[in-house]
Amino acid sequence: MRIVVVGGGFGGLACAKALGNSPHQVLVIDKKNFNLFQPLLYQVATGALSPADIAEPIRRVFKKYRNISTVMAEVERVDTATSHVVTSDGRQYPYDVLILATGSRYSYFGHDDWAQHATSLKTVEDARLIRTRLLTAFERAEKSTDPEEQRRLTTTVVIGGGPTGVEMAGAIAELGRWTLEGEFRNINPSSARVILVEGGQRLLGQFPEKLALYAQRELENLGVEIWLKRRVTEMDASGVRVDDERVPAGTIVWGAGVTATPAAQWLGLETDRTGRIPVEADLSVVGFPGIYALGDITAFTQDDKFLPGLAQVAKQQGRHLGEGLRSATEPGQKLAPFRYHDRGNTAVIGRHAAIFDFGRHRMKGRLAWLLWAIVHVYLLVNAEKRALVSLQWLWRYITKARGVRLIP
Amino acid sequence: MRIVVVGGGFGGLACAKALGNSPHQVLVIDKKNFNLFQPLLYQVATGALSPADIAEPIRRVFKKYRNISTVMAEVERVDTATSHVVTSDGRQYPYDVLILATGSRYSYFGHDDWAQHATSLKTVEDARLIRTRLLTAFERAEKSTDPEEQRRLTTTVVIGGGPTGVEMAGAIAELGRWTLEGEFRNINPSSARVILVEGGQRLLGQFPEKLALYAQRELENLGVEIWLKRRVTEMDASGVRVDDERVPAGTIVWGAGVTATPAAQWLGLETDRTGRIPVEADLSVVGFPGIYALGDITAFTQDDKFLPGLAQVAKQQGRHLGEGLRSATEPGQKLAPFRYHDRGNTAVIGRHAAIFDFGRHRMKGRLAWLLWAIVHVYLLVNAEKRALVSLQWLWRYITKARGVRLIP
Repeated sequence: MRIVVVGGGFGGLACAKALGNSPHQVLVIDKKNFNLFQPLLYQVATGALSPADIAEPIRRVFKKYRNISTVMAEVERVDTATSHVVTSDGRQYPYDVLILATGSRYSYFGHDDWAQHATSLKTVEDARLIRTRLLTAFERAEKSTDPEEQRRLTTTVVIGGGPTGVEMAGAIAELGRWTLEGEFRNINPSSARVILVEGGQRLLGQFPEKLALYAQRELENLGVEIWLKRRVTEMDASGVRVDDERVPAGTIVWGAGVTATPAAQWLGLETDRTGRIPVEADLSVVGFPGIYALGDITAFTQDDKFLPGLAQVAKQQGRHLGEGLRSATEPGQKLAPFRYHDRGNTAVIGRHAAIFDFGRHRMKGRLAWLLWAIVHVYLLVNAEKRALVSLQWLWRYITKARGVRLIP
Repeated sequence: MRIVVVGGGFGGLACAKALGNSPHQVLVIDKKNFNLFQPLLYQVATGALSPADIAEPIRRVFKKYRNISTVMAEVERVDTATSHVVTSDGRQYPYDVLILATGSRYSYFGHDDWAQHATSLKTVEDARLIRTRLLTAFERAEKSTDPEEQRRLTTTVVIGGGPTGVEMAGAIAELGRWTLEGEFRNINPSSARVILVEGGQRLLGQFPEKLALYAQRELENLGVEIWLKRRVTEMDASGVRVDDERVPAGTIVWGAGVTATPAAQWLGLETDRTGRIPVEADLSVVGFPGIYALGDITAFTQDDKFLPGLAQVAKQQGRHLGEGLRSATEPGQKLAPFRYHDRGNTAVIGRHAAIFDFGRHRMKGRLAWLLWAIVHVYLLVNAEKRALVSLQWLWRYITKARGVRLIP
């Protein structure tokens, strides 16, 4: 069969890999030429790692599988009548089986104009932009002679108290406190403000309360101001309004709302509020035999709850689907139902501080932080990336320096 | 004294460093926030290294010298009447001593419109652009069904047979031959064409003929076509014309003419044909006591010859000038004359092939290549970069892979 996988993220890659050297002809389409290890993207945004340290060329991943080919193109639509994927460069790719794994992106709750001021963190471009804005703000503060403007420029507002917001706030606080400290003559980077704004009652809603409180305490120890039960109501280039309070800021980071990429529209599907595609137990799209969806774009129900948009969910779904399709002989045949096995959820706050939630077991502190580092190095794509990231982390651990501070 | 250094390249950095912890107040102005190790920039352009591996934040270099401050700004002009440097953000920086070290850039021999098609290699942006164009051309070739278009897209024309052109041609040939080999299904990257066009009689005019002929042979072994005594006469997005022959190409790289940055205009100076500033034996600008120029923008005569635009010339001039100014007590006082000590000139062709010219002694081949690698790792700014670059080179040496293949 001709199997087309749209999306080279965790899910799409796992699915295609499981189909490696199978009798099927597999085509992976992604608008990028690389797979991105998003869990470490916040380190690119804060100058700790280079983009390439967490990006692997998709075609290198599939080099050894002669039945898998790769195309860099943006999918424009799917012609379900003739079973073709149409890309924006006008080409058409026929499929017998289609797998949609295009992931999610950030949404600005109807304030699309906020996107120009508050950068989200999904792509390498996003990470470079945040890095550029952060470092440029400090450079401009150093040149300024107006204390108020210096204060504004060295203030960063992070919006959203989920894992991305927590990790960004922690990393930015460390950047000012340790990395840039002593390098400026007119400002003191260690007195830079980082404000984390969360609308809910507490940070990290998907973690147990104890771990979330620990994370909050650790962030506060780093100097992060945590504003709970408050909402951003306005935004422009020079700051935000939180409820009724104007907060001048040099950098604004968005880590709040997530929505599915518009793959559902290709099928003309009704989706849930966040754009996700309803699927059957075997990940096939309801009403479209032979078309499957996995990862963040999928609304998959298990034990009466939707599965969260996590890398490990996408990966497990991808592998499951790939293995199921391996021995399939015709499009649309029923596959084994998918079941998610939670291997634990983690977030890192900063040096020596991370949290793990394994369901019954929980972990926090120095040991959790070490485990977090080991797990994330292990999850990288190959030995080269592992060695490069380990080396840079070791260096940073010893010196508190960050090597990747280019503008842009 | 207030000493302002414009330019954070090899020359400016060496000069400011030599003034570290001196009684003078030193200000380094650069439009970038980092110093770039240009000799390895061709490796960034061909996906072997990340920009950050060869870029060091200028303010980190000077962290330990409390008398040196850094400003990221573009200099617009120099007001010699009031002794101020004026930057494009409208700020003014007063000086007692001014040092111009703004370096060189590529010139397109009066064809400024060629710049959009043929990328030169001076900045990180240039290197990212070449990388993007090279990799994108291969991606597009893979999608194409037209053999002629595939052939065009996988053809790279490198213009200029100096060290940059030679290094780029060798690295691009290796990219197709080894790195991308086996990753495509519709094209064969190892049959990609690389054409090196040089107007002169031979490559590497500034090296002895024997070494240049060796370099030419090694490039030819890598499959590079070398077109000598031929000139590019036309250029557009889909190729070049060389003399009367149309050469369709997917990527065009410019490494031909070099010209000084326009610092001379700030002083209203007459320059030589390549925009260089005439200086006295102590590097002071002729007619401007208290203003010095060094590195690529300087026309410095030694033994009746102009010194070449090399990193080591700039570095030695910078150190010499900084040391001279250290004990100076008033602007414009006569300093010791500069004399350049040639430590040898080198170029690398590819795996196992490099050349060294030490004047009386010469070296080529495997040993020269090893020495080249050791010297270049040694010259990097700190132990972190050395470790990172060594690790990636070792990896590449073993696997022939290149890890930094992001578009863009």
